[in-house]
Amino acid sequence: MKPYTFRARYYETDQMGIIHHSNYIRWMEEARIDVLNQLGYPYRRFEEMGYMSPVLHAECEYKKSVKFDDEMKIIVSLQDFGRLKFTLRYDIYNMSEGGCLSACGTTKHCFLNSGTGRPVMMDKEMKEFSDTLKTLLKTDKD
Amino acid sequence: MKPYTFRARYYETDQMGIIHHSNYIRWMEEARIDVLNQLGYPYRRFEEMGYMSPVLHAECEYKKSVKFDDEMKIIVSLQDFGRLKFTLRYDIYNMSEGGCLSACGTTKHCFLNSGTGRPVMMDKEMKEFSDTLKTLLKTDKD
Amino acid sequence: MKPYTFRARYYETDQMGIIHHSNYIRWMEEARIDVLNQLGYPYRRFEEMGYMSPVLHAECEYKKSVKFDDEMKIIVSLQDFGRLKFTLRYDIYNMSEGGCLSACGTTKHCFLNSGTGRPVMMDKEMKEFSDTLKTLLKTDKD
Amino acid sequence: MKPYTFRARYYETDQMGIIHHSNYIRWMEEARIDVLNQLGYPYRRFEEMGYMSPVLHAECEYKKSVKFDDEMKIIVSLQDFGRLKFTLRYDIYNMSEGGCLSACGTTKHCFLNSGTGRPVMMDKEMKEFSDTLKTLLKTDKD
Repeated sequence: MKPYTFRARYYETDQMGIIHHSNYIRWMEEARIDVLNQLGYPYRRFEEMGYMSPVLHAECEYKKSVKFDDEMKIIVSLQDFGRLKFTLRYDIYNMSEGGCLSACGTTKHCFLNSGTGRPVMMDKEMKEFSDTLKTLLKTDKD
Repeated sequence: MKPYTFRARYYETDQMGIIHHSNYIRWMEEARIDVLNQLGYPYRRFEEMGYMSPVLHAECEYKKSVKFDDEMKIIVSLQDFGRLKFTLRYDIYNMSEGGCLSACGTTKHCFLNSGTGRPVMMDKEMKEFSDTLKTLLKTDKD
Repeated sequence: MKPYTFRARYYETDQMGIIHHSNYIRWMEEARIDVLNQLGYPYRRFEEMGYMSPVLHAECEYKKSVKFDDEMKIIVSLQDFGRLKFTLRYDIYNMSEGGCLSACGTTKHCFLNSGTGRPVMMDKEMKEFSDTLKTLLKTDKD
Repeated sequence: MKPYTFRARYYETDQMGIIHHSNYIRWMEEARIDVLNQLGYPYRRFEEMGYMSPVLHAECEYKKSVKFDDEMKIIVSLQDFGRLKFTLRYDIYNMSEGGCLSACGTTKHCFLNSGTGRPVMMDKEMKEFSDTLKTLLKTDKD
């Protein structure tokens, strides 16, 4: 898995002269979608297949502020995996500041059937995807 | 018609210490939707009735920068009206700076039938709405 | 204290047809700034006095999705207060859905001296403000 | 000059199922900053040298809607260049739709001295940069 990299955008700054904290939540989404693409499960396809995946919970701890044009790197891992819900973890590094950890966060998700609105039993209805997702599981050795 | 008023938000600032120019385009949308509500045609209802109204063109002239928490006032008027397209004009005033004109912009729209994707002849299919919209037409005396 | 009210904006929706989750983090900021205004401590003034108040942690639990134009109400309370840090809590209600609780979240903050970058001992340097803030403390009886 | 490429982000979609029009204005900024980086004049450095470059006018014509995850390509050229102001033009192509032209837009800028707030005579104070910028000038042969 290649980490997700990008440069902090000017329109993401605020008048403190740093990236506004709300954008980290969006960066996590960008990284999540990039990881799904790399795993061979583009998010686009889930929606086409009649699933949606709302965010149930999101959280971010801000450790060191990020500046415009800083080169960022996000590593996504699987923190938790149940039959109905899973939690992704994001470690956000600032390569323009010596690769320091700028923030870390999590998002919790489920899948819903777009038609019925009912939650999807992932281990049954999405067995192959579930198995692939579990390869992102952080092990003790990481 | 009551003008649309609000305060410039912190997350809309950038590191120049002013509101980022892209947000004015969003403010125009807020004002447009407020006007439609006031006219008795909530935008929500258009989408429920199977129409969508994409933006064909948007433009903004920035005259004086706006700061966080400034109290803004937007006056919407109809600049142009054809069978398929109409253009709205937005005068954006900063009440925290003596009511000076901060920016003015326009957006051009059409209506599409969500099912067929085809443009709507407004004077035929939306006669009542068209007539109401024309009350926003700027006259020479304004 | 008046709760903070507003309508969900069109540009805040995403292709799931609901408000994108990142916007709740921005709504919390809007509510926080509104509360500070009501308490007589406009955030603007903190920055003019040489303080900045970065967000250390933000979190949101999404309970029920919000749609465009829904009328929202946010109640801000103080969840935790230390010498250097404080945590605000946000209860986000959807008045267009019978006032149901749509989400709740928290943000943790400190104050920094803009010049030195050093954290501010709130109970010393900002005694009056600290006392005012504590009036937002949620008591058992709430 | 390499064109600026990226994929349309999920959080940029709206409930019409397409990219919200306001984001194109932000994309133009991303492309502009990328071009300045390529020309050897990172925007970051202008601000460090005491200049700021507000947007005086922005405009976008939307030709064909863009969907989530579409691969976009933006070509920036110089449309107009005066002593105080210059206008950039952006041609926005959708590589996921056969490279069709999705939108084109312009932004007009000046440079201000951050200290005095006064406009900068570009041909005098920024001669080298002006000459470099002119290499982006669209010629008849393009």
